[in-house]
Amino acid sequence: MSEMKSYHMTPEEFRKYGRIVVDWIADYYQRVESLPVLSQVQPGEIRSGLPSEPPQIGESFESILGDVDRLILPGITHWQSPNFYAFFPANTSGPSILGELISAGLGVQGMLWATSPACTELETHVLDWMVDMLSLPEKFKSSNTGGGVIQDSASSASLCALLAARERTTDYQSNEKGCDGRLIAYASTQAHSSIEKAVKIAGIGRENLHLIEVDDRFALRPDLLKTQIEADREAGLIPCFVCATVGTTSSNGIDPLPEIGRICREEDLWLHVDAAMAGTAALCPEYRFIHEGLENADSYCFNPHKWMFTNFDCDCFYVADRAALIQALSILPEYLRNKATESGAVIDYRDWQISLGRRFRSLKLWFVIRYYGVEGLRHHIRRHVELAQHFARWIDEDDGFELVVPPPLNLVCFRHVGGDLINKRLLESLNRSGRLYLTHTKLNGLYTLRFCVGQTHTEEDHIKEAWRRIREAVTKIEEEIKSDS
Amino acid sequence: MSEMKSYHMTPEEFRKYGRIVVDWIADYYQRVESLPVLSQVQPGEIRSGLPSEPPQIGESFESILGDVDRLILPGITHWQSPNFYAFFPANTSGPSILGELISAGLGVQGMLWATSPACTELETHVLDWMVDMLSLPEKFKSSNTGGGVIQDSASSASLCALLAARERTTDYQSNEKGCDGRLIAYASTQAHSSIEKAVKIAGIGRENLHLIEVDDRFALRPDLLKTQIEADREAGLIPCFVCATVGTTSSNGIDPLPEIGRICREEDLWLHVDAAMAGTAALCPEYRFIHEGLENADSYCFNPHKWMFTNFDCDCFYVADRAALIQALSILPEYLRNKATESGAVIDYRDWQISLGRRFRSLKLWFVIRYYGVEGLRHHIRRHVELAQHFARWIDEDDGFELVVPPPLNLVCFRHVGGDLINKRLLESLNRSGRLYLTHTKLNGLYTLRFCVGQTHTEEDHIKEAWRRIREAVTKIEEEIKSDS
Repeated sequence: MSEMKSYHMTPEEFRKYGRIVVDWIADYYQRVESLPVLSQVQPGEIRSGLPSEPPQIGESFESILGDVDRLILPGITHWQSPNFYAFFPANTSGPSILGELISAGLGVQGMLWATSPACTELETHVLDWMVDMLSLPEKFKSSNTGGGVIQDSASSASLCALLAARERTTDYQSNEKGCDGRLIAYASTQAHSSIEKAVKIAGIGRENLHLIEVDDRFALRPDLLKTQIEADREAGLIPCFVCATVGTTSSNGIDPLPEIGRICREEDLWLHVDAAMAGTAALCPEYRFIHEGLENADSYCFNPHKWMFTNFDCDCFYVADRAALIQALSILPEYLRNKATESGAVIDYRDWQISLGRRFRSLKLWFVIRYYGVEGLRHHIRRHVELAQHFARWIDEDDGFELVVPPPLNLVCFRHVGGDLINKRLLESLNRSGRLYLTHTKLNGLYTLRFCVGQTHTEEDHIKEAWRRIREAVTKIEEEIKSDS
Repeated sequence: MSEMKSYHMTPEEFRKYGRIVVDWIADYYQRVESLPVLSQVQPGEIRSGLPSEPPQIGESFESILGDVDRLILPGITHWQSPNFYAFFPANTSGPSILGELISAGLGVQGMLWATSPACTELETHVLDWMVDMLSLPEKFKSSNTGGGVIQDSASSASLCALLAARERTTDYQSNEKGCDGRLIAYASTQAHSSIEKAVKIAGIGRENLHLIEVDDRFALRPDLLKTQIEADREAGLIPCFVCATVGTTSSNGIDPLPEIGRICREEDLWLHVDAAMAGTAALCPEYRFIHEGLENADSYCFNPHKWMFTNFDCDCFYVADRAALIQALSILPEYLRNKATESGAVIDYRDWQISLGRRFRSLKLWFVIRYYGVEGLRHHIRRHVELAQHFARWIDEDDGFELVVPPPLNLVCFRHVGGDLINKRLLESLNRSGRLYLTHTKLNGLYTLRFCVGQTHTEEDHIKEAWRRIREAVTKIEEEIKSDS
């Protein structure tokens, strides 16, 4: 390095500050339970602590890190608290964080095989491993016609699946001439909002996403799907894409893949299966029923960044026919041409995703799989499901509460029997306490609380304490209501 | 944490292994110059070293890290080598890597303000800072009608801009009913391939992207743009979107924003400006000419993850009218409803991007700006431009070489005067040597070498050595050609 004033952090400074940051993170995990899970700040409060002008002169690393504690931490909602039960988890782990750190240190781009062969080949390899680990259909392996790729999120995976479906259906003419408003996509009323977003982005239009009603377990009704497809064909429309969900966001509902798959084969529709959180459960043979019928899917995704101890972003997206995906998304300007690409012997992941650039994300997934081993991962998934089932039993046995639907895995949907208002007040009171964080949904039109067990360090004591606090909060709300009236 | 066997890395183990990884990265930067810049492995070589089955039992962290050295590193193309001159840089720095590490440690989701207020507010704040730092139009600030957001890449930013344009032009009906094949987008023949990709993804169609010819500096010709728009309107088509480029990928060409902006205002077209790499130059007042005319743009992006010492991914995307963007991309399912969103007092960045989930990416950008200060950033940008200009002078003064175009900033496009074949052989010989890495493009139909100065640690000695190696390699190739004939 040059002798002149460089402004850069030297390797020796990096060693010093790196250790401080590593300790900061270890300390954070040791104290995270003491922090309010849901940040209690008001809108604008964090910004008001920040200087309005950027610094002209560089500052010391110590002062920057001090400001993380002082200015940033109060505005953090602690997704890594064991008392986090909101939405879906976005859990992580030591090996994942360190894998992410090495990836940041290497700072490579994986857009082409040639721009870092290891970035591409490790990704292909680990995604093939995951096919075995979840017992997914062999066709999703790179050694067959398919293959896997890491996307940032299930939203992007669904969009890519939809684009491949759009192009296959229109013989790759939508890419050339644009959409014409006649393609139709299908999903259940319980499908994730990203499906609606994908349909809009892809120029298909929200009105051409036909939402199919669900049964009493919030699973898509295949009979209604079949009827709708037939009606659409009769109306001169072009059915194209079905998204089935394994573990819906609201209630972990599981769509019947065997029947949906059969319809998609008969009707020649692309079947995408979104198993964003629940897919991880298939690490354990006893939960693999969730994927029954997956052999008829054209594409599939699940998110290690939700429930498999791997930092966001890491969605594993598989296609049965990689050529269809690549043909939908490929571009080849002169400045990206290279011998390896032209040999046809390599994968260029730029053609498997929306963006051109990409990080070395398989490193953290590889670290997690190797550090835990399949055995360690199974242990924790089983434990989370078991804890959720305990919690569900307590709900079920308490006259004041009811389960809205029997929980298939790690998400418990429940409500107090006293009506929407009391449930709303309950949620607000719990979240305001900072001691735990839950979110809600509506099921059958009723305000429903969701209790999702999946943070890395959630243990039995945490859910016992959560249940105690829930009952305590309800008692208090009931007393307030009584004294108000 | 529980007393039972947990498989997790304990905080004490994390401290220990974290230090080892920090040292590993510091060591990596100290030896990166000794490694071949372009990985020299053959297709399949990295995979062949990996076990075909995932481990059932967890492995030690030491053995995993050992395998990074043994199995992964040979397959890395070293983007952080000071001898990396290929494509565009994707540079990084100590403070950025440590910011990324804290972000991984916190593991928060920034999809909604409520899911971590600091993640949203720091991002808004730092992107407002960047408006001042680059002297961008004030309308891009969140305090006005606009605002900034971090995207993963310029590809995604351009797609979001195109979607906002599509919806504004069709009165938000494309989202509802789908595209109808009549919308037209424009860019120069030199625009990045992501524009073609965005047009396909958005259902507009490649044939509806009208590429406008460029002048002898590879800048879009506004007269031809105007003519094309008029012809398209006469043909019953609906002009909608123009992407202008500040610093094209092939040659750093700079489109004339004042004239293009005037046309877009007259014709009521959305003007997006893609300054992916070159935008960073505007940190220095003397290079701000590149943004002249930007006040007429509807959206703008540049990538700190290219040339501003910030890890990928970090693209700063600005819109002048945030309502148009949000209306194009918003979704609001019940399970994401919350008080803060409904108050209207907060930004929910989920509605500013394709995906739902998002990392805490502003942390690393904040670290970089604070650690270097504006002064330190300017120093290094000036230095890179200066080094590129030195290199260009050497090319210009050597009878065997020629500049294809005068380099406006840090990218030098040049060729040996001996024709395409010798330039191809030169590139291959240099890259195979592992001592430096360049890539190529075609300009005016001729094979052209690109020499882009932007890696954090590239200094004068590196470019002198590069120039020496280039001349040496040419001499050798000329001798080979002579002895062949």
